[in-house]
Amino acid sequence: MPEKYIDELNYAMLDSSREERTGLPEVIYCSGKTPEQVAGIAEAILKKESFLLASRASREVYEALRAVAPEAVYYEQARTAAVGRWKAPRQDRLIAVVTAGTSDVAIAEEAAVTAELLGRRVNRIYDVGVAGLHRLFARLPEIREAHVVIVVAGMEGALASVVGGLVKAPVIAVPTSIGYGANFGGLAALLSMLNSCAGGVSVVNIDSGFNAACMAVKISGIE
Amino acid sequence: MPEKYIDELNYAMLDSSREERTGLPEVIYCSGKTPEQVAGIAEAILKKESFLLASRASREVYEALRAVAPEAVYYEQARTAAVGRWKAPRQDRLIAVVTAGTSDVAIAEEAAVTAELLGRRVNRIYDVGVAGLHRLFARLPEIREAHVVIVVAGMEGALASVVGGLVKAPVIAVPTSIGYGANFGGLAALLSMLNSCAGGVSVVNIDSGFNAACMAVKISGIE
Amino acid sequence: MPEKYIDELNYAMLDSSREERTGLPEVIYCSGKTPEQVAGIAEAILKKESFLLASRASREVYEALRAVAPEAVYYEQARTAAVGRWKAPRQDRLIAVVTAGTSDVAIAEEAAVTAELLGRRVNRIYDVGVAGLHRLFARLPEIREAHVVIVVAGMEGALASVVGGLVKAPVIAVPTSIGYGANFGGLAALLSMLNSCAGGVSVVNIDSGFNAACMAVKISGIE
Amino acid sequence: MPEKYIDELNYAMLDSSREERTGLPEVIYCSGKTPEQVAGIAEAILKKESFLLASRASREVYEALRAVAPEAVYYEQARTAAVGRWKAPRQDRLIAVVTAGTSDVAIAEEAAVTAELLGRRVNRIYDVGVAGLHRLFARLPEIREAHVVIVVAGMEGALASVVGGLVKAPVIAVPTSIGYGANFGGLAALLSMLNSCAGGVSVVNIDSGFNAACMAVKISGIE
Amino acid sequence: MPEKYIDELNYAMLDSSREERTGLPEVIYCSGKTPEQVAGIAEAILKKESFLLASRASREVYEALRAVAPEAVYYEQARTAAVGRWKAPRQDRLIAVVTAGTSDVAIAEEAAVTAELLGRRVNRIYDVGVAGLHRLFARLPEIREAHVVIVVAGMEGALASVVGGLVKAPVIAVPTSIGYGANFGGLAALLSMLNSCAGGVSVVNIDSGFNAACMAVKISGIE
Amino acid sequence: MPEKYIDELNYAMLDSSREERTGLPEVIYCSGKTPEQVAGIAEAILKKESFLLASRASREVYEALRAVAPEAVYYEQARTAAVGRWKAPRQDRLIAVVTAGTSDVAIAEEAAVTAELLGRRVNRIYDVGVAGLHRLFARLPEIREAHVVIVVAGMEGALASVVGGLVKAPVIAVPTSIGYGANFGGLAALLSMLNSCAGGVSVVNIDSGFNAACMAVKISGIE
Amino acid sequence: MPEKYIDELNYAMLDSSREERTGLPEVIYCSGKTPEQVAGIAEAILKKESFLLASRASREVYEALRAVAPEAVYYEQARTAAVGRWKAPRQDRLIAVVTAGTSDVAIAEEAAVTAELLGRRVNRIYDVGVAGLHRLFARLPEIREAHVVIVVAGMEGALASVVGGLVKAPVIAVPTSIGYGANFGGLAALLSMLNSCAGGVSVVNIDSGFNAACMAVKISGIE
Amino acid sequence: MPEKYIDELNYAMLDSSREERTGLPEVIYCSGKTPEQVAGIAEAILKKESFLLASRASREVYEALRAVAPEAVYYEQARTAAVGRWKAPRQDRLIAVVTAGTSDVAIAEEAAVTAELLGRRVNRIYDVGVAGLHRLFARLPEIREAHVVIVVAGMEGALASVVGGLVKAPVIAVPTSIGYGANFGGLAALLSMLNSCAGGVSVVNIDSGFNAACMAVKISGIE
Repeated sequence: MPEKYIDELNYAMLDSSREERTGLPEVIYCSGKTPEQVAGIAEAILKKESFLLASRASREVYEALRAVAPEAVYYEQARTAAVGRWKAPRQDRLIAVVTAGTSDVAIAEEAAVTAELLGRRVNRIYDVGVAGLHRLFARLPEIREAHVVIVVAGMEGALASVVGGLVKAPVIAVPTSIGYGANFGGLAALLSMLNSCAGGVSVVNIDSGFNAACMAVKISGIE
Repeated sequence: MPEKYIDELNYAMLDSSREERTGLPEVIYCSGKTPEQVAGIAEAILKKESFLLASRASREVYEALRAVAPEAVYYEQARTAAVGRWKAPRQDRLIAVVTAGTSDVAIAEEAAVTAELLGRRVNRIYDVGVAGLHRLFARLPEIREAHVVIVVAGMEGALASVVGGLVKAPVIAVPTSIGYGANFGGLAALLSMLNSCAGGVSVVNIDSGFNAACMAVKISGIE
Repeated sequence: MPEKYIDELNYAMLDSSREERTGLPEVIYCSGKTPEQVAGIAEAILKKESFLLASRASREVYEALRAVAPEAVYYEQARTAAVGRWKAPRQDRLIAVVTAGTSDVAIAEEAAVTAELLGRRVNRIYDVGVAGLHRLFARLPEIREAHVVIVVAGMEGALASVVGGLVKAPVIAVPTSIGYGANFGGLAALLSMLNSCAGGVSVVNIDSGFNAACMAVKISGIE
Repeated sequence: MPEKYIDELNYAMLDSSREERTGLPEVIYCSGKTPEQVAGIAEAILKKESFLLASRASREVYEALRAVAPEAVYYEQARTAAVGRWKAPRQDRLIAVVTAGTSDVAIAEEAAVTAELLGRRVNRIYDVGVAGLHRLFARLPEIREAHVVIVVAGMEGALASVVGGLVKAPVIAVPTSIGYGANFGGLAALLSMLNSCAGGVSVVNIDSGFNAACMAVKISGIE
Repeated sequence: MPEKYIDELNYAMLDSSREERTGLPEVIYCSGKTPEQVAGIAEAILKKESFLLASRASREVYEALRAVAPEAVYYEQARTAAVGRWKAPRQDRLIAVVTAGTSDVAIAEEAAVTAELLGRRVNRIYDVGVAGLHRLFARLPEIREAHVVIVVAGMEGALASVVGGLVKAPVIAVPTSIGYGANFGGLAALLSMLNSCAGGVSVVNIDSGFNAACMAVKISGIE
Repeated sequence: MPEKYIDELNYAMLDSSREERTGLPEVIYCSGKTPEQVAGIAEAILKKESFLLASRASREVYEALRAVAPEAVYYEQARTAAVGRWKAPRQDRLIAVVTAGTSDVAIAEEAAVTAELLGRRVNRIYDVGVAGLHRLFARLPEIREAHVVIVVAGMEGALASVVGGLVKAPVIAVPTSIGYGANFGGLAALLSMLNSCAGGVSVVNIDSGFNAACMAVKISGIE
Repeated sequence: MPEKYIDELNYAMLDSSREERTGLPEVIYCSGKTPEQVAGIAEAILKKESFLLASRASREVYEALRAVAPEAVYYEQARTAAVGRWKAPRQDRLIAVVTAGTSDVAIAEEAAVTAELLGRRVNRIYDVGVAGLHRLFARLPEIREAHVVIVVAGMEGALASVVGGLVKAPVIAVPTSIGYGANFGGLAALLSMLNSCAGGVSVVNIDSGFNAACMAVKISGIE
Repeated sequence: MPEKYIDELNYAMLDSSREERTGLPEVIYCSGKTPEQVAGIAEAILKKESFLLASRASREVYEALRAVAPEAVYYEQARTAAVGRWKAPRQDRLIAVVTAGTSDVAIAEEAAVTAELLGRRVNRIYDVGVAGLHRLFARLPEIREAHVVIVVAGMEGALASVVGGLVKAPVIAVPTSIGYGANFGGLAALLSMLNSCAGGVSVVNIDSGFNAACMAVKISGIE
């Protein structure tokens, strides 16, 4: 299917309207794509754009990417690769990325790095889970400074509700698949967050730091 | 337990800090409470506040409420009762409430009425599901005017993704329990929305127009 | 099957060893039994014992019970009927029954009434959910006095983890089926509690205030 | 069990009536079979037939197959091996295979290759998901030319509903297991497609491009 | 919202393009709509069209419908109301509606009545489940005459696979919620049909005779 | 814990009453046990018994077993190791092991080998799934000779119902985890078999050829 | 559809071969059928047979049945109606029906009455659940006399495993939907029984006393 | 983020209040943490404390730990590493750790080792599952000596209910993921234990020997 493949790259050129429509740049979601496919799409995008972001990028994908864009940077924990930085409006706006535990950090980094690349200031506040609330209270003033709060938590995901009851900013909850057996791949934290008793909490997909960042960037772009 | 009950009302007085902490007023969630309990809590709140909102209120609950607050208003479709209107900042901000079908209107009304009572302008755009995309496109300019978009959809919930790919505003998706058998009480739409391929979509609980409104009010309150 | 039925009552007489074996008296679980069956079993038990407890008893069951035991008392919210009070060891021990919301009170009452009938002191601390943590902190000294803490919560059940991180006593978590759609009949709170990040929390069945009380009575009976 | 094995091959000879009964040739489903078993069955079929199709064939299976049928061809992405091409009626009929993303291409190729081998013309239209509807609209005239449309999509699977509302041809939806956590191995897309608000959409098993092709071939064989 | 309501009816006028786009007329799905809403929409449609179909219509809905369209007919078992009959192409094409048991007849009637109203000939072949295969074989010649076969089955849904292995026509499987406990509201039959070992079987939502009919009408409309 | 381990082996000696109680010999279930543990238990059993059966035995386990029992035999497909053959009553009784496909053979072999080792005659009838019923009918006379029929099937598991409607012998259904995505690890076949419309079908755990054989041996041991 | 209905009754005449094929008589499963349909089918059967059994029969169904068969008998708890008694071979064989609790008796009666009507002797042993094992041991000698044991249990269904480890007869386990929240309509007992650690236990559908009886009758009919 | 990392270690110093609050020392949960992270946190804790416990520790983690704490001990089966032993009150109290099978021993060891390190006496009673109740009865006197009983069981988890009906001590049930297909990763045992018919049983997460030990230590610390 060589012609098809070129069509696909042609398409990539055609979607330069995504930013215009949605206020967010086009991004390559690497899961299920070969390194060659990612590199090909990246090459096409970079012909027209100076910024590129690839989510769920393995190191192998990054190597392929670097072949077409030597200036590409790789954020290992965040599994994110990028070229340049997006010119976002409202760079003054601040996003707090909060985790319940150290084990949630990889997903939090995906959110934080993505938000930074998309032009926001980020404050990382990690390991302040509800088993030791004083840790959360110690950082609460910082969290309250943010315009949007992303809460990343596995296990029972209770941190989202607790933070939701303490801050004025909207809270985006990211359930993670961290935990013992009945976590069921993040289902426990997901259901917990969806049922939050605190108002002003909404939820993205399990382990999806990337989607949380997109939502946070859109929210904090409001004029 | 008459003493306990009074304690509870005492507590209600004590939580006057909710608004200060979270930027949203205290609200009575009526499910699982007797009309008498709702009325008792309402009476205690109204001693201190001029605004009251009761979600998931049956007509029976409303009657009990009117006994202690004759000026209370009832929004039948939205199952919401209220006294007064909250003094929100940023009343200039606009929320679009969009539904896929007519059957989703009750949940949408819960969102719309709540948002209005909490001080936002609301534009209702109903029955623009993806089975007939031209209906959505006809209303798209209106939707694009909003600062936040709430998408209410049952069945497969595809409207959230489609809208998410067409607007700059953040999208809050509300899955509803409308549909045939394998909808499984809203699970189909819920999973669909959580897996949205469009960036900038987050999700609240099934049939929870109220939570969507809280999130939208918080988002649109950003300075 | 009239002979069978008598056999069944004969058996009831034979299980007088339950108390000896398990340290808890025999109890009638009324779900799925006709009022007549409950009354028949009660009559047989009361020939040998001065104490009787019937859980999940409807008012109709209670009426049938009163026909054979006029001194029976009915606790409506707790759906529990009883004759007398059990002679428990260690009546000095205290159980705190804590709820997240007012809607969880019926299940909490089942736990509290059962524990009281089984010879424990009970302190009810209702409506201290995590959406307003200051309510919990205001009652924390009381909770810390208890030898065992029962936490009853629906929605996301986060209260169990938060309490678990604040007290020395073992925590028994009771998920309730209170909440919006994706609560899935209590599944959300159940999974949340099973995945609690705080050590020293264990869980009983959804809406099972009765089992929580049994566990708490056994724990607080330790010498 | 050497005698049994021969029986099995004898059976294979006996099912030459499948084509007569169902209008589709016998096919080897390779999952759970050893390369030797596949080769043995293939050998028996090829004694009587000039066409052979093996689905879910690994490269290892293909190597074993080539030992008994050197002319066998392997379609790597489609995990499909074949000898010859089936003599189908109505070769004029056209099937469109449409995917939401590049990550769905492997499953789409299974559908497309199978349909081609079974005697249909196929038009591949890849990466036209609902996050950028203009891509879909650009290809819509082509899709509308097809007699049957196969829509392959993971994540929330919304593309099936959108296409279903835009074309006259019947739509066969194939959910894929592509996506983040709450995709639950394709469950999200499966439920989404089953609940499609558009009429004229039916669904096959997760990741089953092969079954979609069989259905499409049967449909497009109608006189 | 009186203005909104009119908008909605305005929209209904605007969707007269559905037939042009999808080859199927607009239909009112009555679940979750009040009888008044259904009647209002029907009135608007009938101003422009001579044919009207309302699915999932209760008798109460039908009464409201008759007030605006006295010639409306009601099919009780099928829960379907209609005015007139749609002018379909290819009225020569035949659809077989096959059920496993008598208990599946209501869903089968929804499929059969819908298909007839949409201009197809229908042959009803009921109660030929796999527990007594001779019943199926006795009717097999009739089933083989059909251009499309709809198989309606609850319990284990095995009939879909068996029919799929015996006919040349494409098979549309409709799982029903008929059965004992572990049927789980039709889930057992749904999964069974999705996993059919026979090629050329696709599946619609649980209890959705309507969607099966739409798919069958689209398939049998192929030129 | 060396003393503990010996206790454990002592216990093994003590359970020589299993055969007396249940009519079946003690068996070692190897999953989750180290090769050393299996060998140790085997050694203890063989001091008292001349027959040994180890289910779910990997080749590694078999090697460890052969060190303590050089005469041990290994059935690779069946993942079963054994020493000797059990002296069963009623060796005249016949068990038919029937599979839907070739992919189900490994589980079927576990059932067949186990039943043979436990003293029954077994007739293997493989690959007679419902997609080609004539294959089943060709073997039906043989199946009807059996005193018990074990049906092993993955995918939709329809074969159990079909066989159940054709034979006088009781049918034991074994769902397998063979199949495409929505098989969900055997859940589809499991639910299908539990919901069988044919009387006289009961079900064992997914992939549990061993339990099917135990049940079949018990049934066919009836005097 | 009056002609259809007659066809259906004609069919009923045709299935007189069920007994010949499966060794069990034809039975009317009443769920989802109207009383009129049941009566019509019954009338057709009784023209040819002297025995009739209707499962899941409501009292309303029974009244309709009595109109065509005045000698019909109704077993209320078992929800079973019958005319006559089937002439079974091996009436000497004994089936034990064992329940964990009094709440499981309705399902147990369905099994017991069905087995008796199908010509077996039945011994009812009710309320011997594992919470008080001495009750089970007191009845164990009786249970050991049976040729087949049916164990009916809700909640955690542990009784099936315990009985399975104590008797030589094959055990048929019937999960019931009795229990608190996380029973999930019988799912807990179902999974528990499928995972029984005792060999020689197989499982039928939730609450399906009828299927357990069919299996038990088939097993105990073995020569 | 080197500064962040130090913050994190700073936090570790700050949570020295955990013991004061909850009566249990701080513990490192190693899942999802790199060996370097674990070692870093351990180093910080050991600056202030003489006791350290790391759960879910791989051998690789242990090696990293030994680099900062050469006296660290590793319990392989229990996947637990430790430095020193905690000074618990009430070292006279005894915990019985009971397993159904040998395959459950790894989880049981996690419970037993943790409880010992936290200052309790432990009696291990392994492989006394309900398939052979005499094994349990042989050890029952020992079990009855314990102040708390931990029951570890996979498959159907029936042992928890049986023990719950035989002892006065509170029972903590730990479901394990050991078993065949429909165990669904421990779900079967989990639901079984939550639905236990015996009073005084509560449940922790699947495979979570660690949480069971924490609960048992808290319970047995009651004065």
